[in-house]
Amino acid sequence: MASTAYDFKPTPESIPPPNIELKLKLPQNIPVNYHPLNPLDFLLRAALIYPHKIALAHPDVKTPAFYTYSVWAQRVQNFAYAIIKQGLMPGDRIAVIAPNVPMMADALQGALAARVILTAINTRLTPQEVTYILEHSGSKLILIDSEYLHLVKGTRIPIIISNDTGRSGDPYEDFLSEGRRFSNEKGWSGLDMEADENTPAMLCYTSGTTGRPKGVLTTLRGTYLGAVANAFEGQMNPDSTYLWILPMFHAAGWTFPWANTFAFTTQIAMRSVDYPTIWKHFLHSNVTHYCGAPTVQIGIVNDPAAKRPPQNIRAYIAGAAPTAHLIGSLEKIGITPIHVYGLTETYGPFTRNYPQKSWASLSLEERSKFMARQGHPFATAGDMRIVYRPEENPKGSNGGLVDVPKDGKTIGEIVTRGNIVMKEYFHDPEATKQAFQGGYFWSGDLAVMHPDGSASILDRSKDIIISGGENASSLAIEQELASHPHVLEVSVVAREHQKWGERPMAFVILHPEHAAKWHNRHDEFTKDLKAHARKRLPGFACPEWVEVVPELPKTSTGKILKTQLRKIVAKL
Amino acid sequence: MASTAYDFKPTPESIPPPNIELKLKLPQNIPVNYHPLNPLDFLLRAALIYPHKIALAHPDVKTPAFYTYSVWAQRVQNFAYAIIKQGLMPGDRIAVIAPNVPMMADALQGALAARVILTAINTRLTPQEVTYILEHSGSKLILIDSEYLHLVKGTRIPIIISNDTGRSGDPYEDFLSEGRRFSNEKGWSGLDMEADENTPAMLCYTSGTTGRPKGVLTTLRGTYLGAVANAFEGQMNPDSTYLWILPMFHAAGWTFPWANTFAFTTQIAMRSVDYPTIWKHFLHSNVTHYCGAPTVQIGIVNDPAAKRPPQNIRAYIAGAAPTAHLIGSLEKIGITPIHVYGLTETYGPFTRNYPQKSWASLSLEERSKFMARQGHPFATAGDMRIVYRPEENPKGSNGGLVDVPKDGKTIGEIVTRGNIVMKEYFHDPEATKQAFQGGYFWSGDLAVMHPDGSASILDRSKDIIISGGENASSLAIEQELASHPHVLEVSVVAREHQKWGERPMAFVILHPEHAAKWHNRHDEFTKDLKAHARKRLPGFACPEWVEVVPELPKTSTGKILKTQLRKIVAKL
Repeated sequence: MASTAYDFKPTPESIPPPNIELKLKLPQNIPVNYHPLNPLDFLLRAALIYPHKIALAHPDVKTPAFYTYSVWAQRVQNFAYAIIKQGLMPGDRIAVIAPNVPMMADALQGALAARVILTAINTRLTPQEVTYILEHSGSKLILIDSEYLHLVKGTRIPIIISNDTGRSGDPYEDFLSEGRRFSNEKGWSGLDMEADENTPAMLCYTSGTTGRPKGVLTTLRGTYLGAVANAFEGQMNPDSTYLWILPMFHAAGWTFPWANTFAFTTQIAMRSVDYPTIWKHFLHSNVTHYCGAPTVQIGIVNDPAAKRPPQNIRAYIAGAAPTAHLIGSLEKIGITPIHVYGLTETYGPFTRNYPQKSWASLSLEERSKFMARQGHPFATAGDMRIVYRPEENPKGSNGGLVDVPKDGKTIGEIVTRGNIVMKEYFHDPEATKQAFQGGYFWSGDLAVMHPDGSASILDRSKDIIISGGENASSLAIEQELASHPHVLEVSVVAREHQKWGERPMAFVILHPEHAAKWHNRHDEFTKDLKAHARKRLPGFACPEWVEVVPELPKTSTGKILKTQLRKIVAKL
Repeated sequence: MASTAYDFKPTPESIPPPNIELKLKLPQNIPVNYHPLNPLDFLLRAALIYPHKIALAHPDVKTPAFYTYSVWAQRVQNFAYAIIKQGLMPGDRIAVIAPNVPMMADALQGALAARVILTAINTRLTPQEVTYILEHSGSKLILIDSEYLHLVKGTRIPIIISNDTGRSGDPYEDFLSEGRRFSNEKGWSGLDMEADENTPAMLCYTSGTTGRPKGVLTTLRGTYLGAVANAFEGQMNPDSTYLWILPMFHAAGWTFPWANTFAFTTQIAMRSVDYPTIWKHFLHSNVTHYCGAPTVQIGIVNDPAAKRPPQNIRAYIAGAAPTAHLIGSLEKIGITPIHVYGLTETYGPFTRNYPQKSWASLSLEERSKFMARQGHPFATAGDMRIVYRPEENPKGSNGGLVDVPKDGKTIGEIVTRGNIVMKEYFHDPEATKQAFQGGYFWSGDLAVMHPDGSASILDRSKDIIISGGENASSLAIEQELASHPHVLEVSVVAREHQKWGERPMAFVILHPEHAAKWHNRHDEFTKDLKAHARKRLPGFACPEWVEVVPELPKTSTGKILKTQLRKIVAKL
């Protein structure tokens, strides 16, 4: 990568002037001993301390680009001036629709510099969904990668197109260059520092598996503290290289855009999640960190190119618990899983599974049961509790929340509070009020509390399977079915049952190495899997039906779409 | 250490009840998405996540003690209740006079839990100085190690004595046990969480090399952010072991009491800085981190026991720049220096020397010149500038500060601002106003700014030597003299000179390995050292006089007392 980086010439307007001052204009009368927390500061510090280090590499395109911290900071400054030139004011919203390309990385930093609120829209949504988000957010400008223009056909909102070339003549590059000219070389000190750290930072729309997506509004303070925690938990440092597998539009990349600048890492951008390219970087670009849901991780470890890279890699896993098989597969090739849990409403990770020395003596299967727990609140997260839902416990009705016992059995809902809980649902005071009851944010995730104070998620409230009056966790069933050596991936949903009300149905992708064995013998595989389940699960949780499928429906962020599986089941 | 730790039985009152809730009482009406930053939270998290890990070890005394996070947190809780039982109210001051023993570690955490302000007093002060601090701080209680009782003879302030036994019957243990009984098992939730993160945390008196010591008041927010930065910069983690060489009473241990709990490390307490014991722990207790001034580091590398430990150690160095010789000696035995700079007024470290890849190809001497720079503002520090002092530059007189050019030559004063600048000088609005002019804290340190935006300190303003109208930095002279292979330690001060006004005089300790060579031949050594200096320094900066001495006068924190050297010089 290095030789290509040396050849790359950024546009002339991306080159900072000599002796640039990397400081925003201080607010008037700010106290000597107070500085509003702002994650943009990390980029400015990096440009001061490691100006010539590659901050952002985009190597896998026809016209690769490699930005040093010094150049990238200048481009972010140009971005801010370009936004201001458009007449946008602090607090206005702008949208970006793009994969993990430099424009997206710029926008996440540059919006903070311009003090506008960025809405990064999921590129896999339908035009109707995109229109809804643009309207709901009141976006006044759209930055869009040319591959996704069909999503905004006919919009009246001004559009800036990027062809992702990084070269003069690209409309996005012209936009930045105009910003530079408009700045009149006033530089960073021509941009006001936001005085209030509780000012909104990002507007992230939830994937909305049920109903309309909701706009999660984050703050500067929350983003700062979340980013610091993510950098610390993964022990990121200036020798780290972060590979952008997680979409940056997913909950603003779980604050990793700023965790990376905080730690002075090199970030590698990729237009799409493509396993051969991932492995190229694992093996040849010294990647040390990445984030991904278990489905993505499964794809990584099962790629034919998979082998132990020369360096250790830390993988943040969230979205669902990693199975024993996945943990084993990752560790075998030198990838250390960091299991975290959170939601868009908590800036991404809020809890972490903290490894314990005592696990060292356990078998992989035993250890994985502990590692599958969502764990404890992480570095800068506040309080997490698992409480009875109001309808289940009248004691809670006086406003005080009641914790479930720490027995690893009693189901309650995860509630959180603290600095990395969102500010609000944008323009939706009703939904905000609903979510913020009793002084806590209600996650919608059902879980149990173990005696050690760590949490295990059983299900989203709607994913629980009620079989003969018993609550069966679809996640717990999946966890056990996934331990069958021939199962690559599995998802379990409720299916109506005359006698028991509901019974679990499993959808299974076979492991490619073993698929041939069961070819045209799915009935026998079903028997084998059911026998496997009976040894590990209570009767009410054993799957009544098993269907072998070539693939599972997934969201753009790799989460399995149980809603679609339920639709299939409803027709059976 | 481990086997002894298993044998240790804490007092019954140190054992937490089963199913303890590790949460303070939330303030009324606190928003869901706001949590006041408070470094005490780190200990509670550690006790939740790693309850059985050794948090605090005190092995080198007649009755060793080993506290797990679970037990230590309970003792801190007992401490808080014991303080409250004394009738102390939030904001009241208490004093502690002790070396690095568990009582001191408890007090640094427990004062936060009780919401009183802790003044940790330097044990090497005179009784008069101690009396001044006790009176100025208005301390209402003194916790004191029995070795230091002579410092408070005749005081009317209530005293709690520790015999540092950790066993029932020790008055300090009785104090904690009373706290436990007084708590009536209300636990953590019987203690109020401080709602305002800008509330004072610690009251740290400066060493006061000139005039009365000043009381530096810190805040919860600043301590939290400083601690996170120190943990991050040193890549501390749950596998780390921190050795308490730096006195905890020195600027509240540079926030390391909380950096350690943030990172879930094991801390090892020592009553005194004793090189054989340090080496015992380096070689056998898996120490990974410690802090110390260069003089302490020199003692460490020159100890006969010094050899490469099995693990890598990171040494935070502050108080003065490390010399090439020291850096080389540390690296040779696997100790990585982290050069930081700060003052009590900045919670300890405010800047860090950030290593650059380009230094790898330099000789040790060349590289050391870069590593001796104080560097750039570190992780959570705010802004640092080097500005003309008001008397030197009339342009600054309109209130705006004027930066010196980034030429590595022009001398100005370091000023800082941000979250890790103190709240104020306690009960001294005049001194606070003086220190907080033009929106910045004036450090009193003279420095130059290099073209890369990093700072090099030349001197405290009073340590500069004005020779024939030229400003000679005593630090720069010391740096060059220290590169003479026979010099162990050196200090340079101004001495009156008829022709030049002032000329430098050097006080030198010879390296023990070479001292014999110069026995009774100090004149020849002087010639040799002057010749060495002339090759490296401009004429006005070469020492006119050299005196070989067996030791140098130092403060309790290892800083050389130039005031005393000046007194000697004045009599010559």
